Amino acid sequence: MAEKTDAQVVIGGKTYTLSGYESEEYLLRVAEYINSKIDELNADSEFAKLPVDMRHLLLNLNIADDYFKAISKNEELQSIIDKKENDLYDIKHELVAAQMKLQSAGKKKKGSDA
Amino acid sequence: MAEKTDAQVVIGGKTYTLSGYESEEYLLRVAEYINSKIDELNADSEFAKLPVDMRHLLLNLNIADDYFKAISKNEELQSIIDKKENDLYDIKHELVAAQMKLQSAGKKKKGSDA
Repeated sequence: MAEKTDAQVVIGGKTYTLSGYESEEYLLRVAEYINSKIDELNADSEFAKLPVDMRHLLLNLNIADDYFKAISKNEELQSIIDKKENDLYDIKHELVAAQMKLQSAGKKKKGSDA
Repeated sequence: MAEKTDAQVVIGGKTYTLSGYESEEYLLRVAEYINSKIDELNADSEFAKLPVDMRHLLLNLNIADDYFKAISKNEELQSIIDKKENDLYDIKHELVAAQMKLQSAGKKKKGSDA
Protein backbone atom coordinates (compact mmCIF):
# COMPACT_ATOMS: atom_id res chain seq x y z
CA MET A 1 0.00 0.00 0.00
CA ALA A 2 1.17 3.53 -0.74
CA GLU A 3 2.63 5.58 2.10
CA LYS A 4 0.80 8.68 3.29
CA THR A 5 2.63 11.86 2.29
CA ASP A 6 2.64 15.20 4.07
CA ALA A 7 3.17 18.12 1.74
CA GLN A 8 3.33 21.80 2.53
CA VAL A 9 1.62 23.85 -0.14
CA VAL A 10 0.95 27.57 -0.45
CA ILE A 11 -2.46 28.28 -1.95
CA GLY A 12 -3.87 31.78 -2.21
CA GLY A 13 -0.99 33.03 -0.07
CA LYS A 14 -1.75 30.67 2.85
CA THR A 15 0.38 27.68 3.80
CA TYR A 16 -1.40 24.37 4.29
CA THR A 17 -0.11 20.94 5.17
CA LEU A 18 -1.85 18.37 3.02
CA SER A 19 -1.79 14.73 3.97
CA GLY A 20 -2.70 12.09 1.41
CA TYR A 21 -1.66 9.20 -0.78
CA GLU A 22 -0.72 11.44 -3.67
CA SER A 23 2.95 12.28 -4.20
CA GLU A 24 4.29 15.60 -2.93
CA GLU A 25 5.18 16.51 -6.51
CA TYR A 26 1.56 15.97 -7.60
CA LEU A 27 0.18 18.05 -4.70
CA LEU A 28 2.59 20.87 -5.57
CA ARG A 29 1.47 20.77 -9.22
CA VAL A 30 -2.20 20.93 -8.17
CA ALA A 31 -1.44 23.83 -5.80
CA GLU A 32 0.40 25.68 -8.57
CA TYR A 33 -2.56 25.16 -10.88
CA ILE A 34 -5.06 26.49 -8.29
CA ASN A 35 -2.81 29.51 -7.71
CA SER A 36 -2.77 30.20 -11.43
CA LYS A 37 -6.59 30.19 -11.42
CA ILE A 38 -6.60 32.58 -8.43
CA ASP A 39 -4.17 34.86 -10.29
CA GLU A 40 -6.43 34.83 -13.36
CA LEU A 41 -9.39 35.94 -11.24
CA ASN A 42 -7.35 38.56 -9.35
CA ALA A 43 -6.29 40.06 -12.67
CA ASP A 44 -9.83 41.46 -12.86
CA SER A 45 -9.99 44.35 -10.38
CA GLU A 46 -13.73 43.76 -9.93
CA PHE A 47 -13.02 40.34 -8.42
CA ALA A 48 -11.64 41.73 -5.13
CA LYS A 49 -14.86 43.71 -4.63
CA LEU A 50 -17.05 40.59 -4.65
CA PRO A 51 -18.25 38.99 -1.39
CA VAL A 52 -15.97 36.20 -0.19
CA ASP A 53 -18.46 33.38 -0.92
CA MET A 54 -18.85 34.65 -4.50
CA ARG A 55 -15.06 34.66 -4.90
CA HIS A 56 -14.87 31.07 -3.67
CA LEU A 57 -17.69 30.14 -6.01
CA LEU A 58 -16.01 31.75 -9.03
CA LEU A 59 -12.79 29.90 -8.27
CA ASN A 60 -14.71 26.61 -8.08
CA LEU A 61 -16.57 27.39 -11.29
CA ASN A 62 -13.34 28.20 -13.12
CA ILE A 63 -11.65 24.97 -12.07
CA ALA A 64 -14.82 22.98 -12.82
CA ASP A 65 -14.96 24.65 -16.25
CA ASP A 66 -11.42 23.42 -17.00
CA TYR A 67 -12.52 19.96 -15.89
CA PHE A 68 -15.57 20.00 -18.17
CA LYS A 69 -13.45 21.18 -21.10
CA ALA A 70 -10.99 18.34 -20.46
CA ILE A 71 -13.87 15.84 -20.31
CA SER A 72 -15.24 17.16 -23.58
CA LYS A 73 -11.75 16.85 -25.12
CA ASN A 74 -11.69 13.24 -23.87
CA GLU A 75 -14.93 12.53 -25.73
CA GLU A 76 -13.52 14.14 -28.86
CA LEU A 77 -10.31 12.05 -28.65
CA GLN A 78 -12.34 8.90 -28.00
CA SER A 79 -14.36 9.47 -31.17
CA ILE A 80 -11.11 9.94 -33.14
CA ILE A 81 -9.95 6.58 -31.73
CA ASP A 82 -13.24 4.94 -32.77
CA LYS A 83 -12.90 6.40 -36.27
CA LYS A 84 -9.29 5.19 -36.59
CA GLU A 85 -10.30 1.75 -35.35
CA ASN A 86 -12.93 1.56 -38.09
CA ASP A 87 -10.37 2.69 -40.67
CA LEU A 88 -7.94 0.04 -39.44
CA TYR A 89 -10.63 -2.62 -39.62
CA ASP A 90 -11.52 -1.66 -43.20
CA ILE A 91 -7.96 -1.50 -44.41
CA LYS A 92 -7.05 -4.83 -42.77
CA HIS A 93 -9.98 -6.33 -44.63
CA GLU A 94 -8.70 -4.85 -47.90
CA LEU A 95 -5.20 -6.16 -47.18
CA VAL A 96 -6.43 -9.69 -46.50
CA ALA A 97 -8.46 -9.59 -49.75
CA ALA A 98 -5.38 -8.43 -51.70
CA GLN A 99 -3.22 -11.12 -50.09
CA MET A 100 -5.76 -13.80 -50.98
CA LYS A 101 -5.84 -12.62 -54.58
CA LEU A 102 -2.03 -12.72 -54.66
CA GLN A 103 -2.01 -16.24 -53.27
CA SER A 104 -4.55 -17.37 -55.80
CA ALA A 105 -2.63 -15.65 -58.63
CA GLY A 106 0.51 -17.47 -57.44
CA LYS A 107 -1.27 -20.82 -57.52
CA LYS A 108 -2.66 -20.21 -61.02
CA LYS A 109 0.82 -19.30 -62.21
CA LYS A 110 2.24 -22.50 -60.73
CA GLY A 111 -0.61 -24.47 -62.42
CA SER A 112 0.12 -22.92 -65.83
CA ASP A 113 3.89 -23.39 -65.36
CA ALA A 114 3.43 -27.16 -64.68
CA MET B 1 -21.68 37.13 -30.97
CA ALA B 2 -23.19 34.91 -28.28
CA GLU B 3 -25.82 36.43 -25.99
CA LYS B 4 -25.08 36.76 -22.30
CA THR B 5 -27.12 34.33 -20.24
CA ASP B 6 -28.32 34.74 -16.68
CA ALA B 7 -28.74 31.45 -14.87
CA GLN B 8 -29.87 30.80 -11.33
CA VAL B 9 -27.92 27.99 -9.76
CA VAL B 10 -27.95 26.51 -6.27
CA ILE B 11 -24.47 25.60 -5.06
CA GLY B 12 -23.82 24.39 -1.53
CA GLY B 13 -27.39 25.30 -0.60
CA LYS B 14 -27.04 28.95 -1.68
CA THR B 15 -28.70 30.46 -4.75
CA TYR B 16 -26.48 32.46 -7.10
CA THR B 17 -27.26 34.25 -10.34
CA LEU B 18 -24.48 33.58 -12.81
CA SER B 19 -24.04 35.72 -15.85
CA GLY B 20 -21.92 34.57 -18.74
CA TYR B 21 -21.67 33.39 -22.31
CA GLU B 22 -22.14 29.74 -21.40
CA SER B 23 -25.58 28.20 -21.87
CA GLU B 24 -27.88 27.88 -18.87
CA GLU B 25 -27.83 24.10 -19.36
CA TYR B 26 -24.04 24.06 -19.10
CA LEU B 27 -24.01 26.23 -15.95
CA LEU B 28 -26.59 23.93 -14.34
CA ARG B 29 -24.44 20.88 -15.18
CA VAL B 30 -21.36 22.53 -13.66
CA ALA B 31 -23.38 23.50 -10.54
CA GLU B 32 -24.66 19.93 -10.21
CA TYR B 33 -21.11 18.63 -10.50
CA ILE B 34 -19.80 21.02 -7.79
CA ASN B 35 -22.70 20.00 -5.54
CA SER B 36 -21.79 16.35 -6.02
CA LYS B 37 -18.22 17.15 -4.89
CA ILE B 38 -19.58 19.03 -1.83
CA ASP B 39 -21.78 16.01 -1.02
CA GLU B 40 -18.75 13.69 -1.28
CA LEU B 41 -16.85 15.84 1.22
CA ASN B 42 -19.85 16.20 3.56
CA ALA B 43 -20.19 12.42 3.64
CA ASP B 44 -17.11 12.47 5.90
CA SER B 45 -18.31 13.72 9.31
CA GLU B 46 -14.81 15.12 10.00
CA PHE B 47 -15.21 17.58 7.12
CA ALA B 48 -17.77 19.78 8.93
CA LYS B 49 -15.31 20.17 11.85
CA LEU B 50 -12.62 21.75 9.65
CA PRO B 51 -12.12 25.53 9.49
CA VAL B 52 -14.03 27.14 6.63
CA ASP B 53 -10.91 28.01 4.57
CA MET B 54 -9.75 24.38 4.81
CA ARG B 55 -13.17 23.24 3.59
CA HIS B 56 -12.96 25.60 0.62
CA LEU B 57 -9.44 24.40 -0.08
CA LEU B 58 -10.45 20.73 -0.01
CA LEU B 59 -13.30 21.41 -2.42
CA ASN B 60 -10.88 23.17 -4.78
CA LEU B 61 -8.37 20.36 -4.48
CA ASN B 62 -11.01 17.74 -5.22
CA ILE B 63 -12.23 19.50 -8.35
CA ALA B 64 -8.64 20.19 -9.46
CA ASP B 65 -7.86 16.50 -8.90
CA ASP B 66 -10.70 15.52 -11.27
CA TYR B 67 -9.28 18.01 -13.77
CA PHE B 68 -5.76 16.54 -13.51
CA LYS B 69 -7.15 13.02 -13.92
CA ALA B 70 -9.05 14.12 -17.04
CA ILE B 71 -5.88 15.74 -18.43
CA SER B 72 -3.93 12.58 -17.79
CA LYS B 73 -6.68 10.58 -19.55
CA ASN B 74 -6.34 13.03 -22.48
CA GLU B 75 -2.64 12.22 -22.73
CA GLU B 76 -3.39 8.50 -22.60
CA LEU B 77 -6.00 8.79 -25.37
CA GLN B 78 -3.64 10.92 -27.45
CA SER B 79 -0.96 8.25 -27.26
CA ILE B 80 -3.52 5.61 -28.34
CA ILE B 81 -4.32 7.84 -31.35
CA ASP B 82 -0.60 8.16 -32.18
CA LYS B 83 -0.20 4.38 -31.97
CA LYS B 84 -3.22 3.78 -34.21
CA GLU B 85 -1.92 6.34 -36.71
CA ASN B 86 1.37 4.43 -36.88
CA ASP B 87 -0.50 1.16 -37.34
CA LEU B 88 -2.56 2.71 -40.12
CA TYR B 89 0.56 4.03 -41.81
CA ASP B 90 2.23 0.60 -41.68
CA ILE B 91 -0.78 -1.30 -42.92
CA LYS B 92 -1.42 1.18 -45.76
CA HIS B 93 2.17 0.60 -46.80
CA GLU B 94 1.62 -3.16 -46.74
CA LEU B 95 -1.59 -2.77 -48.76
CA VAL B 96 0.10 -0.67 -51.43
CA ALA B 97 2.91 -3.25 -51.66
CA ALA B 98 0.37 -6.08 -52.07
CA GLN B 99 -1.55 -4.10 -54.70
CA MET B 100 1.64 -3.45 -56.65
CA LYS B 101 2.53 -7.12 -56.58
CA LEU B 102 -0.98 -7.96 -57.80
CA GLN B 103 -0.66 -5.46 -60.63
CA SER B 104 2.68 -6.87 -61.65
CA ALA B 105 1.35 -10.44 -61.43
CA GLY B 106 -1.57 -9.38 -63.67
CA LYS B 107 0.83 -7.88 -66.25
CA LYS B 108 3.04 -11.01 -66.25
CA LYS B 109 -0.04 -13.17 -66.77
CA LYS B 110 -1.14 -10.98 -69.71
CA GLY B 111 2.40 -11.27 -71.10
CA SER B 112 2.44 -15.06 -70.87
CA ASP B 113 -1.13 -15.29 -72.29
CA ALA B 114 -0.15 -13.27 -75.33
